Amino acid sequence: MIAGLGGLHQFMHWDGPILTDSGGFQVFSLGHLRKLNEEGVAFKSHLDGSLHQLTPENVMQIESELGADIILPLDICAAYPCNPKDAREAMERTHRWAERALIARERFQTEQTLFGIVQGAFEAELRQQSARFTGNLPFPGLSIGGLSVGEPKAVMWEMLQHITPELPNAKPRHLLGVGSPEDFVTGVGLGMDMFDCALPTRVARHGGLFTGYGRINIKSARYRAERGPIEEGCDCYTCRNYSAAYVHHLARTEEQLYYRLGSIHNVRYMLRLAGQMRDAIIAGTYPAFRDTFLARYKPASEEVREDQRKKWKAARSR
Amino acid sequence: MIAGLGGLHQFMHWDGPILTDSGGFQVFSLGHLRKLNEEGVAFKSHLDGSLHQLTPENVMQIESELGADIILPLDICAAYPCNPKDAREAMERTHRWAERALIARERFQTEQTLFGIVQGAFEAELRQQSARFTGNLPFPGLSIGGLSVGEPKAVMWEMLQHITPELPNAKPRHLLGVGSPEDFVTGVGLGMDMFDCALPTRVARHGGLFTGYGRINIKSARYRAERGPIEEGCDCYTCRNYSAAYVHHLARTEEQLYYRLGSIHNVRYMLRLAGQMRDAIIAGTYPAFRDTFLARYKPASEEVREDQRKKWKAARSR
Repeated sequence: MIAGLGGLHQFMHWDGPILTDSGGFQVFSLGHLRKLNEEGVAFKSHLDGSLHQLTPENVMQIESELGADIILPLDICAAYPCNPKDAREAMERTHRWAERALIARERFQTEQTLFGIVQGAFEAELRQQSARFTGNLPFPGLSIGGLSVGEPKAVMWEMLQHITPELPNAKPRHLLGVGSPEDFVTGVGLGMDMFDCALPTRVARHGGLFTGYGRINIKSARYRAERGPIEEGCDCYTCRNYSAAYVHHLARTEEQLYYRLGSIHNVRYMLRLAGQMRDAIIAGTYPAFRDTFLARYKPASEEVREDQRKKWKAARSR
Repeated sequence: MIAGLGGLHQFMHWDGPILTDSGGFQVFSLGHLRKLNEEGVAFKSHLDGSLHQLTPENVMQIESELGADIILPLDICAAYPCNPKDAREAMERTHRWAERALIARERFQTEQTLFGIVQGAFEAELRQQSARFTGNLPFPGLSIGGLSVGEPKAVMWEMLQHITPELPNAKPRHLLGVGSPEDFVTGVGLGMDMFDCALPTRVARHGGLFTGYGRINIKSARYRAERGPIEEGCDCYTCRNYSAAYVHHLARTEEQLYYRLGSIHNVRYMLRLAGQMRDAIIAGTYPAFRDTFLARYKPASEEVREDQRKKWKAARSR
C-alpha cells in the first residue's frame, strides 16, 4: 500500500530522515500467539487478529518498500530479567538473522542504510561478544537493542560500558528507545551518537515539559497566571509566542492545540540539547557539560515515571 | 485573569478579529439551576458548580476586559418550540437588556464594536418587531439570535425572510450559530453578512470533509488508496501536501495530526467559499452562483446530521 503511494517520505510528506525498525520489538511487546523459531516469528495482529510472519528476509523486503533512510534487521529482544541461557540463544539467533538480512538486502537495489543490532540482554560477556560480532559485519552503523525495556537505569549504563569499547569507532551508534533529557546526555557521554524515542512527545501530551531544571507539570496551579513562557530564554515556537498561563489553560481544558504546543516545546528542547552536546564535544569539554547539566536537571522521580507509564499503557490499550 | 494577561488577543497570540458572545446562550443550554428575572440570570456552573450571575451591565464589563473586537449584549434565547406569550416576553426583556447594555458600555472606554441581537423566536410578527426595534438602537451591527436551535431549516429561512426587510441596510448582519456550506450560501442569499459556527471544525474532527459535491467521510474505505487529494483543485495546505489516502490513514488511526489537517481543509473551504460569494455579489451574479452551488452540493442527510449531533453531545458530556 505505502510503496504504491510513493513510499513513506511521499506518504507522510516528510523529507527529513526516517528510520524504520523491523517490527520485531512490537511483535514481542504487543503480539498475541507468538511462534518463534529459526525461520522467523509468526504472530496474530493486536489490531485485527490477522496472522503474519516476519523473517529476516521479508523484513528487508518490507523495509525496502517502505523506503526509510535507515532500516533495521529483524532481531530478538530478550525481556528483563532474562536467564543467561535464553539470553545467549536469543543473541545467537539475532546474529544468524543479521547475516541472513545482509544477504537478503542484496536483492533490493535501494540506497538505504542497514544498521546492525547488538543484543545480549543483561550479560556483560554476551554484550561484548555481540558488539564484536555485529561490529565486524559489513553494517555501516550499529543500533544497541534490548535496553530500556524495564531494567534499572544503572543496569542499562553498565551494559553500555561493556558494549562501547568493543564497537568500531568509525560506525555511528544508535541507542534504541532512549529517551529522556538526562538519559540523552548520559548516553552521549557513554559514546552514543543517535537516539529514538517517543518519550518527549508522550510526556508532553500528559503535561510534562522539559526545562533546564527538570520536567515541570504545566497543569500545576502554579502556572495558572504565569505571564512568562514555559522556560525563560527558550527559543521554541511555543515559548516565543505564548505565556505559560495560556499553555496551562489549554492543557487543563484538553484543547487540541495544547498537544501541539507542548510537543513543539519538548522536541525543540531535545534538538537544542543535541546542538549543545555537539558543541561541547567539538570543544573537548563534554564531561564538564554533562556534569553541569546533570547537576542542574532534576529527573522525574520514579513515582512520576511510573504514573506516566500507567497513563500511557491505559491510553494505548483503549 | 485574562485581562491581567493582556486580554484575549495577547493571551491567544491571535491578531485576527475576535467576537465574544455574552455567555447567555451557554447559560440556557448548559447551566444548571437557572434563575431568570428582570435583573439578569443566575446559574450554577456546569464545570465546577460555582454560582454566577450575568446582568446586561456585568456582561459589558466582562467583555470589555476580555477585549474582543466585536461584543454582544446579554439576551434571552427562546427554545424551539416556544409559545407566543413566552416568545414575546423573552423578546421584550431582550430589548430592555439591549438598552441597559448600551448605557452600561459608556463606562468602558474601549474601541470595541457592540452589536445588537434580534430575537422573537419563531413568530413572524415578533421577528419583524425585534428587527425594527433593535435596528433603530445605536448599534453599528446586528446579530440574529435564537435561530439554528433545533427548528427545521425551512422555519429558520422563513424567519430570516421576515427579519431582513426590517433591518437598516447600512449595518452588517450576523447570523449566530450558522453553519454548514449550504446554510452559509443560503444565508448570504437572504442578506446575511457574517456567520460564526464550530461546525466546520467539529464535523472535520469526526471525518466529515467538505467538497464541491458535498460532505465526504474521509474514514470511508474508498479513500484507503486514493493518491489524489481530498478534493482535486483544492488550494488548502492539506490538499496541496497530502494524499486522501494519508489523511484517511491518520483519521482511521486517530492520529493527532488528522484533527489538524481535517480542520485546515474545512476552514480553508469556508474561507474560499466566502471569497467566491463576495466576487459573485460584486459581479451582480449571486442568485446564479447560489443556485449552481446548491444544485451541486449534496447536504449531509438528516440521518448523518443527527449522528454527528449525537457524537458531539456525547463528546461534550464527557
